[in-house]
Parts: sequence; structure tokens; C-alpha cells
Amino acid sequence: MAAPHIDTGDTAWLLAATALVLLMTPGLALFYGGMVRTKSVLNMLMMSFVSIALVTVVWLACGYSLAFGDDAFAGLIGGLRHSGMAGLGPDSLHGTVPTLLFATFQLTFAIITAALISGAIADRAKFGAWLVFVPVWALLVYVPVTHWVWGPGGWIVDRLGALDFAGGLPVEITSGASGLALCLVLGPRLGFKKDAMRPHNLPMVMLGAGLLWFGWFGFNAGSALGANGLAAAAFLNTLAAGCTGLLGWLFVEQKRDGHPTTLGAASGAVAGLVAITPSCGTVSLLGALVVGLAAGVVCSYAVSWKFKLNYDDSLDVVGVHLVGGIIGTLLIGLFAVKEMTGGAEGLLYGGGIAQLGKQLLAVVVVALYAFAVTYGIGKLIDKAMGFRASEEQEHTGLDLTVHAETAYDHGVLGHGAPVAHSVPATTQKVTTQA
Amino acid sequence: MAAPHIDTGDTAWLLAATALVLLMTPGLALFYGGMVRTKSVLNMLMMSFVSIALVTVVWLACGYSLAFGDDAFAGLIGGLRHSGMAGLGPDSLHGTVPTLLFATFQLTFAIITAALISGAIADRAKFGAWLVFVPVWALLVYVPVTHWVWGPGGWIVDRLGALDFAGGLPVEITSGASGLALCLVLGPRLGFKKDAMRPHNLPMVMLGAGLLWFGWFGFNAGSALGANGLAAAAFLNTLAAGCTGLLGWLFVEQKRDGHPTTLGAASGAVAGLVAITPSCGTVSLLGALVVGLAAGVVCSYAVSWKFKLNYDDSLDVVGVHLVGGIIGTLLIGLFAVKEMTGGAEGLLYGGGIAQLGKQLLAVVVVALYAFAVTYGIGKLIDKAMGFRASEEQEHTGLDLTVHAETAYDHGVLGHGAPVAHSVPATTQKVTTQA
Amino acid sequence: MAAPHIDTGDTAWLLAATALVLLMTPGLALFYGGMVRTKSVLNMLMMSFVSIALVTVVWLACGYSLAFGDDAFAGLIGGLRHSGMAGLGPDSLHGTVPTLLFATFQLTFAIITAALISGAIADRAKFGAWLVFVPVWALLVYVPVTHWVWGPGGWIVDRLGALDFAGGLPVEITSGASGLALCLVLGPRLGFKKDAMRPHNLPMVMLGAGLLWFGWFGFNAGSALGANGLAAAAFLNTLAAGCTGLLGWLFVEQKRDGHPTTLGAASGAVAGLVAITPSCGTVSLLGALVVGLAAGVVCSYAVSWKFKLNYDDSLDVVGVHLVGGIIGTLLIGLFAVKEMTGGAEGLLYGGGIAQLGKQLLAVVVVALYAFAVTYGIGKLIDKAMGFRASEEQEHTGLDLTVHAETAYDHGVLGHGAPVAHSVPATTQKVTTQA
Repeated sequence: MAAPHIDTGDTAWLLAATALVLLMTPGLALFYGGMVRTKSVLNMLMMSFVSIALVTVVWLACGYSLAFGDDAFAGLIGGLRHSGMAGLGPDSLHGTVPTLLFATFQLTFAIITAALISGAIADRAKFGAWLVFVPVWALLVYVPVTHWVWGPGGWIVDRLGALDFAGGLPVEITSGASGLALCLVLGPRLGFKKDAMRPHNLPMVMLGAGLLWFGWFGFNAGSALGANGLAAAAFLNTLAAGCTGLLGWLFVEQKRDGHPTTLGAASGAVAGLVAITPSCGTVSLLGALVVGLAAGVVCSYAVSWKFKLNYDDSLDVVGVHLVGGIIGTLLIGLFAVKEMTGGAEGLLYGGGIAQLGKQLLAVVVVALYAFAVTYGIGKLIDKAMGFRASEEQEHTGLDLTVHAETAYDHGVLGHGAPVAHSVPATTQKVTTQA
Repeated sequence: MAAPHIDTGDTAWLLAATALVLLMTPGLALFYGGMVRTKSVLNMLMMSFVSIALVTVVWLACGYSLAFGDDAFAGLIGGLRHSGMAGLGPDSLHGTVPTLLFATFQLTFAIITAALISGAIADRAKFGAWLVFVPVWALLVYVPVTHWVWGPGGWIVDRLGALDFAGGLPVEITSGASGLALCLVLGPRLGFKKDAMRPHNLPMVMLGAGLLWFGWFGFNAGSALGANGLAAAAFLNTLAAGCTGLLGWLFVEQKRDGHPTTLGAASGAVAGLVAITPSCGTVSLLGALVVGLAAGVVCSYAVSWKFKLNYDDSLDVVGVHLVGGIIGTLLIGLFAVKEMTGGAEGLLYGGGIAQLGKQLLAVVVVALYAFAVTYGIGKLIDKAMGFRASEEQEHTGLDLTVHAETAYDHGVLGHGAPVAHSVPATTQKVTTQA
Repeated sequence: MAAPHIDTGDTAWLLAATALVLLMTPGLALFYGGMVRTKSVLNMLMMSFVSIALVTVVWLACGYSLAFGDDAFAGLIGGLRHSGMAGLGPDSLHGTVPTLLFATFQLTFAIITAALISGAIADRAKFGAWLVFVPVWALLVYVPVTHWVWGPGGWIVDRLGALDFAGGLPVEITSGASGLALCLVLGPRLGFKKDAMRPHNLPMVMLGAGLLWFGWFGFNAGSALGANGLAAAAFLNTLAAGCTGLLGWLFVEQKRDGHPTTLGAASGAVAGLVAITPSCGTVSLLGALVVGLAAGVVCSYAVSWKFKLNYDDSLDVVGVHLVGGIIGTLLIGLFAVKEMTGGAEGLLYGGGIAQLGKQLLAVVVVALYAFAVTYGIGKLIDKAMGFRASEEQEHTGLDLTVHAETAYDHGVLGHGAPVAHSVPATTQKVTTQA
């Protein structure tokens, strides 16, 4: 039997893909940052950027080992053998790529999943509470769910036989269900359902969407862990579903509201990309087109549920990531083809109802687990230190009150005229309770 | 004879390159979006984003098959055998890379070519008409020209022997000639040659230019379809020509106008990149430097022709892409070297006048074809549904009247003071005729 | 002995990495551009963009040959044999990758190093003087230092045995020391230490930081010149150090100032990335975490030295790049591990004090050389043509007076109301002394 060896082509693609996924978090920061009001855009950006740092520390300390180490108990959690990345050097291999690269690729997934949650609690979270929440959440929610799905011997894929190519369960459904839990803990923004709260900068939203889409190719096609035909098919499926998601959302908007919006185009593309994440490496091209379209149409309605059900999921983490993630994970049960899965087939390709049942079970358990544990973490933090910013902070804006900054200062314009609202940094009266 | 097999290194580079080219369209959206006035930036962004979705659908349905399928008739068009990507699975190979990846790479070219045209009709096109135009244009113009150039048995490269490494003909000249046709169909903007119409956000233009340049390496060096010396040479040529394009344009500005502008730097770099697109894999480094410089200098003049000849090519698709594309395609006839082409040589490297003649013929036919067919499509759409927005829409801005949005809302500033022009979404009176 | 041959996987990664590093300069332009006041953001962007063009021309003419050609004299400078890239074709190899690709990869390093310096002299440099400075500086400072470090037979690595994986010496310390020299030549901005001079656009700063971090993976992991375990380890170290840099800086801010800022998060991440640049391919993961943390903490103090010592290093090139570069280069002497270096070990891994001494010598010589030569170049240019813009230009802003542009023009808002300060381009009175 040949000894395992590195494949430089596979490694080259995974290096590029890892950089692409890391870029998604700054992309998300801009996507979210453009959607909030001017007074808290920096806080929104900060929640994403600190997630990069906090999740990385947790992952290197023990997160990677607990998620991807040898199964320690019943497919539920890995062991601590690789805590601190112990035993992993430049020469360690995971399949045909360096283990350190595989671990870093997976780390970028954990980062963006945590950052995604921040959209549900925009404009009103205490920054210090977020700094506590992220590492605890990563450890108690992201890490175990990831082990269930992709860990060696994990109960969802390796034992149950459900499929999740690039993270419908650990990334999309987990972030969506956690976002729902957390926005319930914090309660709605001041003025929810009364004030307009329009996005302050839609070109920034589109820039963020563009960077997200770009990075998503690393996310999805990188999940093939090699430069091969499966990566190529996942890549094309990712593009296709983003497109039909965009078209589906705009179609609904035009019919329902009479105008197709930029925010709808961005949201539709993201909804399609969310839904294709679990399925990109398992379904046919036709399946990908349907998955994206379904997500674009359904999510364009799902984002308004919050107004009826009174939860302020500010930037639609529930409506897009939870709903889109469920759609994509379930539709594997219909559209899986064996050319992609290597065996399993969906209902529409002759595989019967079994795969759909497995997908459904995985979806329900992961959604409930993520919701319940996140709700618990949120409540505990709220008890211990308060999770919600003060009314005065929220009213004035978190940027000035927490970070002592404002996003824009056009006090001195191009032709030298000072503008009245310019406030020198040194004279700002700042309330700081980060 | 060895069976064809995948090369993971070639595939890794083409995966990354495809993602890079896809990013160019959001990059273009920002490049264009920054150049228009505040009142229609979102519409500009939308024209690019919907191009991604519409062209993808056309390409998967039959565009790829017609462009790259086996020649069906006289080098003019491919067959329909791969409609719906039929017969292509994860294991299909195109040379050393997966066919699905090759098809996706080529799709990203089709996308940005369509999006490029939007610059010629900024601020005044009916959005619904654009939604009709893009797929029709992709099918009737982009697809056949691509077959002529790169399709198996296409008349321009395979039969005539003209050279086009990365798309001077199907991308640059086609978009430029089509842009000219379409801006003639729509007529000039209200206030053309009277109002200043300054770019509303030049940093956004520079961001777009930076993303375009970044993506262009995927476009040009990816066209080697492998990770090899030819890709490396094309990469360096691409960087070199962008640089001399930038310097050439700034030099003219300084001499002519007395100041080097940011817009000139961005435009010059893009002009150089446009011109090197066909030639990056065929010319010497010296040739690349000259190609870029020539494009920077000539295009810096060409963008003012519209004021003399009275066509409102709003964002200079003609002056940069048509003119730059012609320069780069023709100069292959002078600077081609056999180390790059594998045979053909330009006039200055001892190859005689023949190559130049072939290049010229290809340029003329493609430019005329793209112009004529696009003009016809434009006129038909204009007859059927109107291609031009109403005067009132154009005056008020397409963002508010078509998309019911405004790009920026700084109504509530960092320190809590509401600004007069803040308009709650719910009270906006919107005229919608998308 | 086997003939050298290309590795497509290594080449694929280096192609992608080169594109990533090129993107860093537009990223830097935005990072810097967001930090300055509205009246000179375009000038800031332009200084970076022209650096791309100017350094490329110098590099192709003779810079590459002098830096990486066979040693011509005592490890101090390479020969001119490859001037104009003579003798290098698509088939030339450097290890397992095309030489043209290696040369282009290294070119992108030279570009950003020159661009970095511009941050030290923001808002007050004569644009024409910058156009002269960049090529002269590249030739007299960047090229020799690079030969010392990475040139065949260079005195620092090949002879002395100091280590520098990705450019602590030629990139970070050189740019930092040169920035210090140049800001001394030009003197402080009008209003230094008096006016607030707040960043005009912090989301732009964060976008720039995100693009820089993304590109930095190409910079650092690309420096392995292959897709292998060393690249993977360098990649992870790069992520880790950026994270602890961010956390360290925010921690100091919170303790010292009472609020963690966005600018601090961006600066801390960059400080960590700067410091890990030389050490990413030489130290353990623990070492990387410490290197980043040390840089984040120390640099957060170092950026205020300018106020005490009265040098106006406007955007903190000294405080971040010089200080961070020194930290990262020296700490190799403590944290180097032989799994990464292939031999040398740091003090904390049993290698004794020797490596630290070598690192220190290299740091001192490079910093002094870069400072002295840059100071000389700056003074000469100042004598010959003046390096500093006029007071009136600086007061009004360089954008309008030098480039005849303003960054933003929201004269016509979404709902059609013209705003008073809209100045039609044709009526601007412009003082141009570029």
C-alpha cells in the first residue's frame, strides 16, 4: 500500500480556498455594515473582526481537536489529543494536503459562522458581552456540531448517513438558529417596526455581497479538499444557485412590491449561496438551479416573518441562513446524484425517501441544539454582565458610545469648508461601557 | 498513447482563476458605480449583478454548447449537444482540467462582457429592457463570436489563424462595439455636454479598478488553462501593460490638462489591461509594455471623441474597450513571438505582414458584427417595450424611481442628529416602471 | 541527477499568491485613504497606484537582475545579466516554478514596500516629487537590501545566516525606516498635534485592512515558493499572529483609553501581520501567537512616540512597520524551530544566543542603511524640485489642487435636490503644481 503523500495541486487549491474563505468575514462585515444605520456601522464591523481573532484562539487551543480529533464519545465529540495543535507539524497530512492547512481551512468556517450571528443582534449588543459570547459559543455549539457532521465517526454523516458537503448544518443552520436565540435574548431594537432603519450604504452592501460570493467559491469548491472534478462541479453549482437565488428574490419583489431592489439582489444571491452550501457537492446542476431558486423565493418571504412574529432578527440571519440552510440541506434528499455523492441518491433520482429522512433528522437536531444552547449562553451572559447596550448608547449609536469613533468624518470637504457637525476627537464626550 | 488525465496543479490554478474572473463583475459594478451620479449608482450596480445571473442561465441552457461544442457549421457556431450541460459530469476532461471547470471559467468571461456594455448606457436605461437585452445579446453576439475565436474549428483562430489569447475579440471589441450601438439606440443622457456629471465617488472607482486588475490576472493568466510558463509570462505581461497604460494616460493628462487625475490612473490601467488581453500570451515583454503604453495614450484621447461625434458613451466603453481591444489585437501582428505562440511571429520579429492582416480582418468582422446585431437587438427592444427610462425617472434618478432605494442614507449621524433629507422608506412616493 | 522540472501545483499556488500580493497595494491605498481627511484621499490613493507602475518599470529594467541575479560583489548586489528580463523566457525555471513567475512574485513585494512609505508623508508631498522618489528609492534601497537578504550569495541570509522568511528586513524595516527618514525631510503637516485629523472613512480603513490580510496569505505562505507543508504552517502562523495582534492592541486601548476602536483593531491586525512576516516560516505556532501579541501591544504604544518626539509619521509607518518588523525579525532568534527552518533554532528551543545576534545585526544594518539612503534621496529631491506641497495646496487639500478632483460629489442626491457645495468640474479654479 502506498504511503500517503502530499499532492501539490490539491494543496495549492486549498491554500487559495482558505484565503478566500477568510476574506468572507471582512466581506460579511461590509455586507452587514452597509445595512445598519450610520451610527453603528463600526460596531457591526468590529463584531466580525473580533470574531476572527477570538475563534482562532479557541480553535487552536482545543476547538480543532474536539471537532476533528478522533471520536471520543459516541460520535458526539472529538478528543483533546491535538489541543494546541499538538502533534501536528508541517509534514502532517490529511489525505493529500497538509493537516495544518486542513485545520486552517476549517477554522475559517468557524470564524464566519460566529460572525454571521452578529447580524441578528445589530445595533444593540454590549461589545464586552459579544467578546465573551463568541468563544463560548464556538466551543459549545460550533465545535460539537462540526464533529457530528465532519468529525471522524461523527453521528450525522459517518453514522446516520446524512450528507452535508460544505456546511449547511454547522454553518448555516447553526448560525441561523443561534441568531434567532440571541435576538430573543436581547429583544428588539428601539423603534423596531416603527422607524424605517434603512441601510445607510447600499454600495457597501453590494461590495460585501461581491466579496462573499467570491469567497464562497473557496468555501464550497474548497470543501472537495482537492483540485478535482468534484471541486469543479461544486464550483459551478455554487455559481448557478447564487444566480437563481438572485433571480427568484427579484421576481418576488417585482410581483409583490413593484420594484426589484439592490438589497433584494444581494439577499437573493446570498440566500442561493446559503442553500447550495450543503448540496453543492451532492446534487446535479438542475438540482443546484432549483435549490437556489427555492431559496431565493422562500427567503424573500421568510425575512418578513420577524415583523409578524415580533423577533428583531435585524439583518435577517434567520430568514436567510436558517431558512436557506434548511432548504439546501433537505433538498439533498431530492436531488442527490451518485456521480457526486459516490453512492447516495435523492428521491428524484431513484434513491427513495431514506436520504430525505436522514437530512430532516439532522436538520431538526442541529437547529434545536444550536437554538437551545445559544439561548442558554445568551441568558447566562445577560444575567452575569448584561448583553444589551444601554438605551442611551443605542439611541446615540454604539460607534460613538462604545468605540469613541464615528464612521465618517467629512468635516473638511475638498474645498476647505468646515462643516458644522465635525467633532474633534479630543472634545467628544464619550460613554464607554464596552 | 496515454489516456487524458487531470492535472491537479492546472486545475488548482483554473479554479482560483475562475473565482478571480467572477470577482471582476462586482469590481466592474463598483468601478462604474463610482463614476455615475449619486442618484443612479444602485441602478448601475444592478445592471452588473443581474448580468451574472442572466448570462449564467443562458450559458448553462445552450450558450456553452453553441460556443464550445463541436463545430456545427463552417466555423460559425457550435452544436447543441451539450445543452443543459448534457453529457458533462465531474469526470469529463478538457485537456488536463475538468470540462465543467473550463465551462465555468468561460462563463465568467461571458458575464463580464455583457456587464461591460452597461457603462455605455448609464443613468437612462429601462431596467426591464436590460433584463431582456442581456440574454438575447449573450446568445446572438457573445456566443457566436466566441465560437469563431475559441470554438473547435472556429473560423477566426482555427481556420484563419488570427490570434487572441484571452479575449480581445469576444470580450473587448465585442463589448465596445455593442456599447456604441446601444448608446446610439438610447441617445444621450439629459444634460449631456452641458452638465458636469462628475463621478460621485472616486475611491469607489479606485476600489473597482483594484478588484478588476486583481481579477484580470485570472482572466489572462488563467487563459493558459494550466499552471505553466505561458501562464507566468501572460501574468507578467498583464501587470506590465497595466502599468504602462496607467503611466501613458497620466502623461497625456499632465501635458494636456495640467493635472494627473485619479480617474485617469484608473482608466489608463484598465486601458492597458484591455489591450494586453488578446496579446498577453502571444507577445514579448517589450511588446506588452508597448501595447499598454499605446492603449494608455490613445484611449486617453479616444474617450473625448464622444463629445465631438455626439454619442453618449457614458462611462467610455467605446473609448477604452473598443479602442483598447483593437490596439491589443492588432499589435499581436507586430509583437508576436514564437516562444509564446508556438509558431506565429509578428512583423517586428520576422514574421512578415501576414499575421497583421489576419488580426485586422478578425477585428473588422467582429466589430461590425457586434455593432450591427446589437443595434438590431436594441432597436427591436426599443420598439417592443421602450429601452429608455422616462425623463422624469432620469431626472429624479433611477435608484429611487426604479429600485425604490437610495444609495446612501446618512439621515441619522453618529451623534444622533437627524438630517432633513432622511426619507423613511414607507413614505417614499415611488414611480416604478421597471 | 534529475533535470529540474516545473511542478504545476507549486506554480498554481504561486500564481494565486502573486495576484494576492498585488491586491495588497490597492488594499493599502484604501487602508491609508480612509485614514486621511476628505481633502486628500485621492492623493493618498494615487501614491499607491503610481507605485505599482513605477516600481514595475524599474524592476523589469534592472531591479530584478540586481536583486536576484548572481552575486556581483561581496553579497551586496547582483549583476545586470537579466536586465530587461534578458534570458528569461516562459520555460526558465526557478526551483519548481517559472522564473518569470518568481520574478513577478518578488516584484509585487517591491511595489507594496514603496507604497507603504507614502503613509509617513500623507497630505503634504508634492506629487511630482513622489514620482521621482519611488523609482530612485526602489533602485537604491529596496533592490540592494533584497539582494542582501534573498539574493544568491547575499550577505545577510546566505553568508551571515540570519533568517527572514517573507520580508521583515526588505519590506517592513526598510519601509518603516524610510518612512521615518522621509517624514523628517518633509516636516509635519500643518496643524500637527493641534488639529484632530480624524480618519474620514473608517469603513474604508477596515475594507483596506481586510484586503491586506487576505493578500498577506499570498505574501507569507507564497514565500514558501511551493504548495507544501511549510506554506501551510506559514499560512496558519500568519492568521494566528494577525489575531493576537488585534487582541493585544484592543486590550491596551481598553485599559489605557477606555474603549476599543475600529482603527485599533485594524492597526493591531496589521501590526501582528507585519511582525509575523519574517518569522511565519521559521517559528512554532506558539511563537507566532507571541510574535503577534507582542507586536499588537508594543505597536499600540509605539504609534504615539511621534507626538513626543515630534516627527509626523502621519499614518504610523514607523510605529507599525518599523517597530513591528523589528519585533518579528528579532523574535526569530527566540522562537525558531528546526521543523520550520530546516536547521536553525531559537534561544527558547535550545539554539543558544547566536541566532538572535545574527537577527539583531541584520536589523540594525538594514534599518540604518534604509534610513540614511532614503534621507539622502529625500533631501536631494527636496533641493532639486521641492518635496513639499505649498501651504495653500495643503490647506485646500491635494485632491483639488493637484489632481483637480474631489473624492466625493453628492451634489445631486437621490431625490433630485442639488446641494450647495456642488462645484461643476468646468468651473473649478485649480492650482496645479504636480
